[in-house]
Amino acid sequence: MYSFKNDYAEGAHPHILQKLIETNLVQQSGYGEDAYSIKAKEILKQKIDNPDAIIYFVSGGTQTNLIVISSLLRPHEAVISAKTGHIYANEAGAIEATGHRVITIDSEDGKLKPADIENVLQAYSLRPHVVKPKLVYISNSTEIGTIYTKSELEQLSSFCRSKALYLFLDGARLGHALTAKNNDLTLSDIAAHTDVFYIGGTKNGALLGEAIIFNKPHLAKDFDYMLKQKGALLAKGRLLGVQFLELFRNDLYFSLARHANEMATKIADAMEAQGYPFLTPPCTNQIFPILPKPVIDELMREYDFYEWKVADEQRSAVRIMTSWATDESVVDAFIDRLKGIMN
Amino acid sequence: MYSFKNDYAEGAHPHILQKLIETNLVQQSGYGEDAYSIKAKEILKQKIDNPDAIIYFVSGGTQTNLIVISSLLRPHEAVISAKTGHIYANEAGAIEATGHRVITIDSEDGKLKPADIENVLQAYSLRPHVVKPKLVYISNSTEIGTIYTKSELEQLSSFCRSKALYLFLDGARLGHALTAKNNDLTLSDIAAHTDVFYIGGTKNGALLGEAIIFNKPHLAKDFDYMLKQKGALLAKGRLLGVQFLELFRNDLYFSLARHANEMATKIADAMEAQGYPFLTPPCTNQIFPILPKPVIDELMREYDFYEWKVADEQRSAVRIMTSWATDESVVDAFIDRLKGIMN
Amino acid sequence: MYSFKNDYAEGAHPHILQKLIETNLVQQSGYGEDAYSIKAKEILKQKIDNPDAIIYFVSGGTQTNLIVISSLLRPHEAVISAKTGHIYANEAGAIEATGHRVITIDSEDGKLKPADIENVLQAYSLRPHVVKPKLVYISNSTEIGTIYTKSELEQLSSFCRSKALYLFLDGARLGHALTAKNNDLTLSDIAAHTDVFYIGGTKNGALLGEAIIFNKPHLAKDFDYMLKQKGALLAKGRLLGVQFLELFRNDLYFSLARHANEMATKIADAMEAQGYPFLTPPCTNQIFPILPKPVIDELMREYDFYEWKVADEQRSAVRIMTSWATDESVVDAFIDRLKGIMN
Amino acid sequence: MYSFKNDYAEGAHPHILQKLIETNLVQQSGYGEDAYSIKAKEILKQKIDNPDAIIYFVSGGTQTNLIVISSLLRPHEAVISAKTGHIYANEAGAIEATGHRVITIDSEDGKLKPADIENVLQAYSLRPHVVKPKLVYISNSTEIGTIYTKSELEQLSSFCRSKALYLFLDGARLGHALTAKNNDLTLSDIAAHTDVFYIGGTKNGALLGEAIIFNKPHLAKDFDYMLKQKGALLAKGRLLGVQFLELFRNDLYFSLARHANEMATKIADAMEAQGYPFLTPPCTNQIFPILPKPVIDELMREYDFYEWKVADEQRSAVRIMTSWATDESVVDAFIDRLKGIMN
Repeated sequence: MYSFKNDYAEGAHPHILQKLIETNLVQQSGYGEDAYSIKAKEILKQKIDNPDAIIYFVSGGTQTNLIVISSLLRPHEAVISAKTGHIYANEAGAIEATGHRVITIDSEDGKLKPADIENVLQAYSLRPHVVKPKLVYISNSTEIGTIYTKSELEQLSSFCRSKALYLFLDGARLGHALTAKNNDLTLSDIAAHTDVFYIGGTKNGALLGEAIIFNKPHLAKDFDYMLKQKGALLAKGRLLGVQFLELFRNDLYFSLARHANEMATKIADAMEAQGYPFLTPPCTNQIFPILPKPVIDELMREYDFYEWKVADEQRSAVRIMTSWATDESVVDAFIDRLKGIMN
Repeated sequence: MYSFKNDYAEGAHPHILQKLIETNLVQQSGYGEDAYSIKAKEILKQKIDNPDAIIYFVSGGTQTNLIVISSLLRPHEAVISAKTGHIYANEAGAIEATGHRVITIDSEDGKLKPADIENVLQAYSLRPHVVKPKLVYISNSTEIGTIYTKSELEQLSSFCRSKALYLFLDGARLGHALTAKNNDLTLSDIAAHTDVFYIGGTKNGALLGEAIIFNKPHLAKDFDYMLKQKGALLAKGRLLGVQFLELFRNDLYFSLARHANEMATKIADAMEAQGYPFLTPPCTNQIFPILPKPVIDELMREYDFYEWKVADEQRSAVRIMTSWATDESVVDAFIDRLKGIMN
Repeated sequence: MYSFKNDYAEGAHPHILQKLIETNLVQQSGYGEDAYSIKAKEILKQKIDNPDAIIYFVSGGTQTNLIVISSLLRPHEAVISAKTGHIYANEAGAIEATGHRVITIDSEDGKLKPADIENVLQAYSLRPHVVKPKLVYISNSTEIGTIYTKSELEQLSSFCRSKALYLFLDGARLGHALTAKNNDLTLSDIAAHTDVFYIGGTKNGALLGEAIIFNKPHLAKDFDYMLKQKGALLAKGRLLGVQFLELFRNDLYFSLARHANEMATKIADAMEAQGYPFLTPPCTNQIFPILPKPVIDELMREYDFYEWKVADEQRSAVRIMTSWATDESVVDAFIDRLKGIMN
Repeated sequence: MYSFKNDYAEGAHPHILQKLIETNLVQQSGYGEDAYSIKAKEILKQKIDNPDAIIYFVSGGTQTNLIVISSLLRPHEAVISAKTGHIYANEAGAIEATGHRVITIDSEDGKLKPADIENVLQAYSLRPHVVKPKLVYISNSTEIGTIYTKSELEQLSSFCRSKALYLFLDGARLGHALTAKNNDLTLSDIAAHTDVFYIGGTKNGALLGEAIIFNKPHLAKDFDYMLKQKGALLAKGRLLGVQFLELFRNDLYFSLARHANEMATKIADAMEAQGYPFLTPPCTNQIFPILPKPVIDELMREYDFYEWKVADEQRSAVRIMTSWATDESVVDAFIDRLKGIMN
């Protein structure tokens, strides 16, 4: 049984483990003041062309989202998110638990557009009887595998600025977005067009770890307190520093994501060749082909993946996810199996 | 300029003010331990046929909602409400500020049905990645003037019990609901079919005040602490006790609500006679006739009321609200004015 | 049985009730936008010599404290208070419930001095492992009846400014402080030397009500949302407006407080004449004489008051509290009774 | 420069890294459902003799404390802790940020006794004006290196049970406590006498990780939601599972702690031989010798450690901390250096 259920079924890329062993007994300061974290932050600042950025490493995505958002908002302020957004759909009310409403927007492709947000602002105008929308949360790639174009991000960014809204980008799978074949954004574009974003390590080769990047330093004021208060400041911060150092010193991060995308694309191409449609256009490491139920049943005898959404009585969209660790031979075998079912 | 904008534009019913004067200099214990509060609670327990009920008086509806809900829920539990529900639409995120998501249901008539809630339970089943729905919030009358029938409330109550969901009824305008012409519920029905509910005084003759009634005493455990912690325990609790005593010792509460309903019905009948449709069937003290824009403009020269919702290019629904203090002569003059416009 | 337990055992001053009756049926806007609230705010701004101040009226002191403090602080910031401070000793954790630590200082007289606060700042310097002290909370008069001198307040204010700490003054009994015989502060001094303060109505002649005054307008940004979110925005805000208008249009507020102080002073003088010492020097409407237990027992047969603190095996400090409503004949009878016990 | 500042200056014990490498590419379920976590929990349940215990692994101590405590308490309930307790002294207000007061007790040795807690209960009796103490938080070993005896823990446990207080033990350094030379407690004693406790991995050989153990299963109800909501549920939970498996399958955990204790004891013995007193009796891996300032200055030229507390004008207590990674040759060299200073 091989799993295509998610991109965190294996441990870390071997280079990372190797680096952990090499550095293991070197004494270091705790709580993120270690030499590896400091070096990794320097490299990241260069890659985003922003020497003034403020960077912190934490353990996971939900943790990142709740700490960043609660640190930026006053009690009466709210977040705007796609209904499919991770903070609304998958985080057990983590944002509301910090006191803030998540206002949702229905979005076919998981992305937000200025017009969507304008509607929210109008619906929330009867001050003080409603919350005040203050932060726009987006993901790239989105929770349904789609990506933002440069033009889309620019428009959104410009709109948010005009309305005094913060723009925060969840990059749990940012590597996959930026190495998608149809992508036209760079890491420094992301930095230029958002107030805060994060680069996800957990789903792209690290044991755990996300890099939070404040592009505007004043927004990071006292953020160290927030990390400590929410239990996110690891005593051995070196564990995060070493990993990001290894992922970014030679762009391992991007080559891992590219591999994951290629494996997914190979499967998508094979499915398209069989005539299967998709829920959203496949471009990153998660694809949502719509398959006949007997095909699904047959594939599930040897492979694990999620049945995502019932399409009609005969068919369902499924989610197939690949990762840095997905071996091409496994992909080939899966495609063979798929072809076999049809014949 | 006469206002039909809301039912809290005047002070209190004169009997209440009179009672405040009569009792003014009698020394009393503070924080709700005064003789008037104790007596008022006794009367209310009789009226709902539940000697074991636990009752507290507080200042307002938002305060009630946030304290009751946050006292009943654990951090990961959520509330289900109609999208028009006061806690979602009009309370500035008060519930989320206590840490809990409000899950909304689109509802034409502002009411909730078991099937709506069943859908939510299914959508929130992927534990622990989602919040746990635990409390159903309804209003009677609703924020758009509709009321629950006995059969509807029974079904909802029974469904909630079967799913271990609390049922909490917001009775900011419970008097208007229970004296509506098509109502078949009694105060003791309300008590029998909910876990907690409140009886609103502010919008029906009191200066301020809502009576929170826990029909199941164990749900009120330590509720006094909650009131104090949220700033809801008035030093001079007598102010609330005296008012509820006066409202309920001779059913003044119901006669005031009935008057408000009758005034609204009179207007509704006149509008219906003119051929105007309604957004929701008029039955309580707030009605939503759909009027041609010139008619609205003309009426607004002498009367204040809300334009509620654009119906089409020519027409909008407006909200006309009456109260215990609405004089019949004013209503008659308004109807005359309305008829005048048409001719 | 006559009660000297507190200063909220009666209702409101008759002038206030009279005004409520006079204005009762005049239609007004809700939520604090009524003409009485607007007028009362104008008068208060004149009295504090600050036309830019931002003022809101709310129901009670705990409510005021929790909303003001939580509106000013970010999640990692903390409040400094005397251990006897109302927010620490009497509010059921209301401040902590909004997420903030109350750091306490032991203080014999219930007041805070710059040196006390300097000690706290030093103890809380190991960022980010500790909270960040950001607001100093004081009361005048204090919870044990003492008052600040002008010089003390100036020093504290200047120290707080130098350390970027907010200074917030709880004036639940500000009237009693400012009319104490040894007082040298004015209402405009209070405004000049604090960032925010409130004037308590509940304990000085109102049915309920406190006036929150932001001396620096930018600190009140979006405060209306906070009020609504915490359930403090009364639909019939007129109830608060009318009362403050009546209390301040002719300085009724101060004459009521002066009366309360005089009644307490009369009792204190009689006790001093009998040779009884005091826990703190008597100057406002609450006094803490230290009495032999048989005297306490004897007085308690006819009068209600709190035994406050055991002094030694033979004696306890008691708390005697007077109010605007304390009749001089009652005070005289009490003094007679006291003298009688000795003979 | 060698550091004795803390016990988290190095990475993980080599056996743990080896196990991470061995298991790295085995696909596993996410979020703690991996085979390693399941196996590690089984072993721990055997070691504490409680097959019904419910166990979760998380990243760090502050995270553990805030999630466990906030999951057990209702909004008005408070925690009791020594003033030196980690939750009060070192966690940036993490507990208050979840809404709960930490009530502190001054304690010379960092431990709590029933009489201390009884005093708190009496001070917090004026319901509902005060919070309700509900959970007692202790650490073993304490933040100042002391340990509980079996008899002390039994008495505390029995007292808490009699008062319906939860007893929660912070075991960030539980290994060091249980392998101290004067210890008479076992892991199963800890389980038997607390409601919840945790076993710290971070400070005893793991990269990160703490094992939360609910000895009474009903207290763990819905705890998975809490973990997710607070951002503590790692996608690759295997990282924690593998480490605890390796630490406990052959009692590596205890041998590492014993080593750390022995290294500290060796230093303590040498200091005692020189005639230096201690702030608290040395028994675990952190010792607090009181040294003349010139000795401190001299040692600090080659070694890093904290000056903890000024003792008098000539002397300060310092904190020397050893760990599983402290090499005996380093300790010997340090002792030689110490002896050298004296001659």
